[in-house]
Amino acid sequence: MPTAVVVGVGAEQGLGAALCRRFARAGHHVLVAGRTQARIAGIAAGLAAAGGSAEAVPTDATVEAEVARLFARAAAPGPGREPADLVAFNAGNNRRIDILDVAAAEFEDFWRVGCLAGFLVGREAARLMAPLGRGTILFTGASASLRGKPGYAHFAAAKAGLRMVAQSMAREFGPQGLHVAHVVIDGGIAGERLLTRAPALAEARGEDGLLSVEAIAESYWQLHRQHRSAWTQEIDLRPFREPF
Amino acid sequence: MPTAVVVGVGAEQGLGAALCRRFARAGHHVLVAGRTQARIAGIAAGLAAAGGSAEAVPTDATVEAEVARLFARAAAPGPGREPADLVAFNAGNNRRIDILDVAAAEFEDFWRVGCLAGFLVGREAARLMAPLGRGTILFTGASASLRGKPGYAHFAAAKAGLRMVAQSMAREFGPQGLHVAHVVIDGGIAGERLLTRAPALAEARGEDGLLSVEAIAESYWQLHRQHRSAWTQEIDLRPFREPF
Amino acid sequence: MPTAVVVGVGAEQGLGAALCRRFARAGHHVLVAGRTQARIAGIAAGLAAAGGSAEAVPTDATVEAEVARLFARAAAPGPGREPADLVAFNAGNNRRIDILDVAAAEFEDFWRVGCLAGFLVGREAARLMAPLGRGTILFTGASASLRGKPGYAHFAAAKAGLRMVAQSMAREFGPQGLHVAHVVIDGGIAGERLLTRAPALAEARGEDGLLSVEAIAESYWQLHRQHRSAWTQEIDLRPFREPF
Amino acid sequence: MPTAVVVGVGAEQGLGAALCRRFARAGHHVLVAGRTQARIAGIAAGLAAAGGSAEAVPTDATVEAEVARLFARAAAPGPGREPADLVAFNAGNNRRIDILDVAAAEFEDFWRVGCLAGFLVGREAARLMAPLGRGTILFTGASASLRGKPGYAHFAAAKAGLRMVAQSMAREFGPQGLHVAHVVIDGGIAGERLLTRAPALAEARGEDGLLSVEAIAESYWQLHRQHRSAWTQEIDLRPFREPF
Repeated sequence: MPTAVVVGVGAEQGLGAALCRRFARAGHHVLVAGRTQARIAGIAAGLAAAGGSAEAVPTDATVEAEVARLFARAAAPGPGREPADLVAFNAGNNRRIDILDVAAAEFEDFWRVGCLAGFLVGREAARLMAPLGRGTILFTGASASLRGKPGYAHFAAAKAGLRMVAQSMAREFGPQGLHVAHVVIDGGIAGERLLTRAPALAEARGEDGLLSVEAIAESYWQLHRQHRSAWTQEIDLRPFREPF
Repeated sequence: MPTAVVVGVGAEQGLGAALCRRFARAGHHVLVAGRTQARIAGIAAGLAAAGGSAEAVPTDATVEAEVARLFARAAAPGPGREPADLVAFNAGNNRRIDILDVAAAEFEDFWRVGCLAGFLVGREAARLMAPLGRGTILFTGASASLRGKPGYAHFAAAKAGLRMVAQSMAREFGPQGLHVAHVVIDGGIAGERLLTRAPALAEARGEDGLLSVEAIAESYWQLHRQHRSAWTQEIDLRPFREPF
Repeated sequence: MPTAVVVGVGAEQGLGAALCRRFARAGHHVLVAGRTQARIAGIAAGLAAAGGSAEAVPTDATVEAEVARLFARAAAPGPGREPADLVAFNAGNNRRIDILDVAAAEFEDFWRVGCLAGFLVGREAARLMAPLGRGTILFTGASASLRGKPGYAHFAAAKAGLRMVAQSMAREFGPQGLHVAHVVIDGGIAGERLLTRAPALAEARGEDGLLSVEAIAESYWQLHRQHRSAWTQEIDLRPFREPF
Repeated sequence: MPTAVVVGVGAEQGLGAALCRRFARAGHHVLVAGRTQARIAGIAAGLAAAGGSAEAVPTDATVEAEVARLFARAAAPGPGREPADLVAFNAGNNRRIDILDVAAAEFEDFWRVGCLAGFLVGREAARLMAPLGRGTILFTGASASLRGKPGYAHFAAAKAGLRMVAQSMAREFGPQGLHVAHVVIDGGIAGERLLTRAPALAEARGEDGLLSVEAIAESYWQLHRQHRSAWTQEIDLRPFREPF
């Protein structure tokens, strides 16, 4: 049984959980990694209840040792399971702050979660998979990965840094058989954060104006399925109604 | 039965033919459009022999009236078939010419095949599908769509123009339910042109260094399958060994 | 006395005329090239009246032979004058047309003026200056050079093509000592076209919301002045109030 | 007398020192900011000896309080001097490290110097100049700002983050009259670092293959001189022989 690692799993309606479901449905044993033990345990239990195979691995991806421990498990995921061949990095948060109000510590926090954690996960994933000459690493980006705008300098700085990590890794590890791709998600995700924190916005956009996490997860899965003679390094995803 | 249109079909080993096979295998009736009657007839016959449904429609895509005729057929593809919901534009050619040696007529020819034809196909496809509020148009790009380099000004000018057609259409028709995407193919395609005209190069690259047309076609198909809550506008495809 | 060529000169308030004035003020003999004899003659006369040196060269830049004739003059501009070391391509027009309403002939016309003409001018300029191992070619771009949007597919296709011509030439001729740069003008120019055809828009934007042609021309001149140890290939210019 | 701030000044042959010279020559009082007291004091003394006005301000730009102190001085630079209207951020370092060998602490160090410091300088500069409705902030970027490649993930992550800071600030403060630009330096700089640490490479490239710091500084100065009706947000600079 192949193994997948999803880093940055939070609420059940979120993208992280949807990635777990998609990979489990495809027959992967899933390491559900996130900071909140109760949440990831619940998601792992849900996967098992639905006939999948999963385990929760509490992980603060900004801490080098915790990421190393996660990938120690990914390298030896138990009897009948192969070392991970699919890793998705999905951590990150977002909030508008005018640049004149961004404290140095806030700028740093966004970078730790959005960029440093991605580097640590990518590095450990490559240490595991590059020697095996196969595997896929998928990084979750945003429109801010490509473009800075007022109120989001801290977020864009982290996301653009993550994109460079992904691109550097793709150029380095692609020829070794390790597929590294970056997914630019442009628009609001119909996940827990938006639905609970900005319900009015979510309703205003309507079902059609938000990205479905299931639809996003399907594209992640298709990236993993690509034959190595035609790999994608970067893909954008947005709701059909989203202006861009 | 849904209908697909593939414009720019040539040799059996080419990408156009592979797109026809993929779409036919998925259950589409395929309009096989290309300039050379014998070639497209042979490909249509091959699709039928493999259990698919197809017809050859001789088309010079640089000629407005011929494109209009093709889409008249795509709008009314016969009993039991629905108007086209999937169109792939795949015409184009490439050849290195030093810019000082590019004649005005050559510069124009590359543009007619690589850009004007794409505009005509895209416009007719949108005229058919946008009012229906559904459908997919896929344009074949190249690394030259993004980047000009010595010896390829004529090719890059055509391809970058085509990309702008695709991007403009995506922004205009996406909100109407019509998915428009551009595929940046970066690297040599293991198709008829390279295999027969540059066999030494093809061999030097090896199977792993070239894009398999079947693998490319699979990604086109997956673009068509995307749910409209998470559409891709641009995707790159390259062999895992390709430096970029 | 050095010689400059400005292609695409129209009204006195336009960018073309401002480029002529800037280059003349810097001591260049200026070949004022445009389609309308009366206009370019008036501008050349104005330059002479202000103490500059200039001559009008009626040129339809979409016609290969006329461009060749212009550069024959640029190569031998008369006694006491050196062959051209500075060429600016500034032709182009713009108009919103919904893509479904763009006729093939319109799409082609925009390309002829916006892209083919630029290729012809660039090619002839390079034929003249590359063997001399020095010189500057400047191309006028727009935000549409980088981005397609509804109503402007025809314009963006031409402008993106022109950008690829510039970029290909820069990569090819830079190492030979010929500086090729592309200027992305983002925003409305306070030139004749906008002031006379859209006076309400011009007024709404106010002086601060439009690009001054004198300010643009200054940046063109500074590009020409750059030392070859630090050349720019692409620059953007926009009014400080322009959102982007 | 106007005041300029240059952050990231090291050796006399470096870009920081060249920026100081250029701004002093144009009549600015220059705050020479860098980590090494002896170096910046020497450079300030050299400026004074050449008839300029300058003072050394020892600053570790990664430390919020030190940046705040520097800008307190920039806001009140002494009798007869106006608050700073020109700020250049030039800190950063570079070194190839294979991504599998990059320690978390190294990844962080590159980000502190290359990105966090730029954010702090930019924020303080904006706090000073935006309320005055005028001024220029210039950020030094690199080709890695746009593109990740093997061995440089850590550097590209920092530089791309810095670029997003610059772009976000440009979009936010431009309309307030504060010009924010990002300079992509592509190629080796004929500065102290390259000349002393990689003399063989420097010699192999020759004078023509390296960016002259004086030439770079001239372009920084021209960016400051641009009229606000035609501002540049991003410019690239490379030696004419540099392939790109």
